[in-house]
Amino acid sequence: MAESEIKKEEKQQKEKSPDLMEKIVSLAKRRGFVFPGSEIYGGLSSSWDFGPLGVELKNNIKSLWWDKFVHRRSDIVGIDASLIMNPKVWEASGHLKEFNDPLIECKKCHERFRADELIKSEDWIKEKKFLDTLSPGDKEQRIRQLFRKCPNCGAEGQFTRPREFTLMFKTFFGPAHSEKSTVYFRPETAQAMFVNFKNVLDTTRNTLPFGIAQMGKAFRNEITTGSFLFRTREFDQMEIEYFVREKDWEQYFDYWVNEVTSWIEEVGIDPKKVHGEEIPPEERAHYSKKTVDFNYDFPFGRKELYGLAYRTDFDLKNHEKMSGESLKYHDPESGEEIWPHVIEPSFGVERTFLAVLLDAYHEEKDRIVLRLKPKVAPYKAAVFPLLANKPELVKLAKTIYGNLQKKFYVAWDDRGNIGKRYYAQDEAGTPYCITVDFDSLEKNDVTIRDRDTMKQERVPIGKLSEYISEKL
Amino acid sequence: MAESEIKKEEKQQKEKSPDLMEKIVSLAKRRGFVFPGSEIYGGLSSSWDFGPLGVELKNNIKSLWWDKFVHRRSDIVGIDASLIMNPKVWEASGHLKEFNDPLIECKKCHERFRADELIKSEDWIKEKKFLDTLSPGDKEQRIRQLFRKCPNCGAEGQFTRPREFTLMFKTFFGPAHSEKSTVYFRPETAQAMFVNFKNVLDTTRNTLPFGIAQMGKAFRNEITTGSFLFRTREFDQMEIEYFVREKDWEQYFDYWVNEVTSWIEEVGIDPKKVHGEEIPPEERAHYSKKTVDFNYDFPFGRKELYGLAYRTDFDLKNHEKMSGESLKYHDPESGEEIWPHVIEPSFGVERTFLAVLLDAYHEEKDRIVLRLKPKVAPYKAAVFPLLANKPELVKLAKTIYGNLQKKFYVAWDDRGNIGKRYYAQDEAGTPYCITVDFDSLEKNDVTIRDRDTMKQERVPIGKLSEYISEKL
Repeated sequence: MAESEIKKEEKQQKEKSPDLMEKIVSLAKRRGFVFPGSEIYGGLSSSWDFGPLGVELKNNIKSLWWDKFVHRRSDIVGIDASLIMNPKVWEASGHLKEFNDPLIECKKCHERFRADELIKSEDWIKEKKFLDTLSPGDKEQRIRQLFRKCPNCGAEGQFTRPREFTLMFKTFFGPAHSEKSTVYFRPETAQAMFVNFKNVLDTTRNTLPFGIAQMGKAFRNEITTGSFLFRTREFDQMEIEYFVREKDWEQYFDYWVNEVTSWIEEVGIDPKKVHGEEIPPEERAHYSKKTVDFNYDFPFGRKELYGLAYRTDFDLKNHEKMSGESLKYHDPESGEEIWPHVIEPSFGVERTFLAVLLDAYHEEKDRIVLRLKPKVAPYKAAVFPLLANKPELVKLAKTIYGNLQKKFYVAWDDRGNIGKRYYAQDEAGTPYCITVDFDSLEKNDVTIRDRDTMKQERVPIGKLSEYISEKL
Repeated sequence: MAESEIKKEEKQQKEKSPDLMEKIVSLAKRRGFVFPGSEIYGGLSSSWDFGPLGVELKNNIKSLWWDKFVHRRSDIVGIDASLIMNPKVWEASGHLKEFNDPLIECKKCHERFRADELIKSEDWIKEKKFLDTLSPGDKEQRIRQLFRKCPNCGAEGQFTRPREFTLMFKTFFGPAHSEKSTVYFRPETAQAMFVNFKNVLDTTRNTLPFGIAQMGKAFRNEITTGSFLFRTREFDQMEIEYFVREKDWEQYFDYWVNEVTSWIEEVGIDPKKVHGEEIPPEERAHYSKKTVDFNYDFPFGRKELYGLAYRTDFDLKNHEKMSGESLKYHDPESGEEIWPHVIEPSFGVERTFLAVLLDAYHEEKDRIVLRLKPKVAPYKAAVFPLLANKPELVKLAKTIYGNLQKKFYVAWDDRGNIGKRYYAQDEAGTPYCITVDFDSLEKNDVTIRDRDTMKQERVPIGKLSEYISEKL
């Protein structure tokens, strides 16, 4: 798609939902999905904490992903590696050399700036890829052109020569603060799969094609756009390194395009809002021979949701070279020792969370409702006694609540009138509300109200657990 | 218990199982539970990666905990906060001031050492608590007595005055490396519950007593003993801050002693190996008025497994003072605004993992078996075709495998003879092995072999899923 068309669509999107993000941020805080991090201390740049409902939605997304890609398959196993790895890992991966932004200082006021802070735009990502293609001299010149005026003191043309600044968070292992003790918090989960490749192969004895999956934190000291969860300095990734024979890479690339698409539907993201875009060679990461970005129509523009990259055998080869340990695979088909090639689907948890919330959010005449897929909804059901001051209703409702709780995460609410309780559960995305009324005492059944249709039906108490199980 | 008795027991324990730890570490690597972190690069101090089976066991432990303490209760909700918080959090908590070790330098060779590296002993923990009671002058004198000879150059009495060294990992947010941009990776999950107290209260409207639970990473740049997963620089915590009225704290402290004990049995740790020990006032953390350590008989000695602390209202009060935001609770019972008091049960994931592995490990005549509770076992079952070269057996076994996989995490194995496959699954802790043989083709049933009793029984294929569900 041409640049201009994307811009046009972004504009339309913004016009359509000028304040949707504000509404989502507000709902997220009001209902306990997401709070500003360290809020009582005035927050901390781009830091968010998941509240009581948010941690459930986040965990449900992660479980669903692990179920789909690990538990329900025979060819992918998981790992969970340390966040801090031997720094040589980042030498081999190219992060120490490539994962940088130029840092410049104003000679007059001595304030230091990172390039992305001065451009203040997502264009920086493209600019950075362009800069990486230039020679050091040309790069410096280009940067001097880009940054002329100091935003702090207003001095013009007073910036120092740019120096490289790593996007990795570094710290020190042990008491000495020296180069020798420097370690980095991983900027991606991917490398751990390559570093553990041999150990996984030896213990599982898997044959090609097979994958290694990981979910976990990664950290980047990078551009912050203020788009809520979209880009934060710490974030959760879900990644798979899928190892194939070189000759099969295109076939499996296509296969993974379909898998990513199927995930998008399963988790509850509107597939019509997701657009696959093949990245042109000059904009691809250095290790990739083919990359497709899955871009989502966020209210603030069409931005990357997921990525799919063909990494070739770049990583295994480099880690073998750097570590001196063989990372080859003995191919029983050909009898050869080969470096498998890698297809990498990469999913951000926070971006998934945000897209799921955005697509679930619906404003209706008298209510706001999160039409979350029941599998990812924090509560599967809520139980209400019709009246909180009638002990016989409360007692029966508590019994039902206790029984359901053995199997599902269920909410209890006995405050205010039923309408208010429905309103609260709609905003929480709870698929079913169960009300115990006076009829329940006689007929041993309850009213179940469906979140989406708002239709009510009577269900025998003994069938409740089955009823909810079926809907999940 | 007197010091001498503990020492005696530790000695007996060591004599009984001189190499149990080595066996566990070896099994963990051989079967894919735990690999040395960054192993191809020669590792990284005290860093371990969870392999294909390990990530499952770890996740199962975490799910079981969350189920017990969040999903199956009405009074505790979860959160998932950023690992990096506003540095003021660590001022208010006392970590910036108290969470330190003295660092000394040899004037001759200029090597720097942390106290615990020179003492090389767990005694340092007690020594440190003793040091904290001394005046700065006395402390310095005591440290000079403790550390006389430089282990690097051998110089005696050449150490500098000790300076404080924080156990928190620090890094920088943004490009500038200054005090202003310094942030810390959290050394515990607990503080996030206090910082989010008001937001959680506002969104859940819970009434006392209630708790906030969190699972997640924490980091300490501290003593490493080399006892496998026992003490690592990054680790997973599971913590609850349970808020009560001051007058009720003793009642709830006792209540939580019971809850911790019940967890220990549920997860599969031998309760006879766990010993509650009340910590004497002079050894307690500064915030605590009562602490009970739950110590476990590890092969390397009786060491802390879990902790239970009465933190008073220390944290909420301090955060209110430091932030200026009210962290009081309006008590509907008394009509007063109060700071709730806090009981904190604290569980380490890695220590749980290690204790579970140790207690599950059994050597028998012809096999090694992990008697893991089925709920935490990585695979719930394994499916085998009796012979891998009989397509009709493989086909039926694959169908069964595929069906079970929809509901459970199940292993497939068609390599070697059945005895070898049992052996492998016993080491993996898989509770049930299902073999498809020629009778299966005619009678539509299979052999299920129980991991612990090694007894076999025939079960109709249609009842397999039910059979396994019941056992879980």
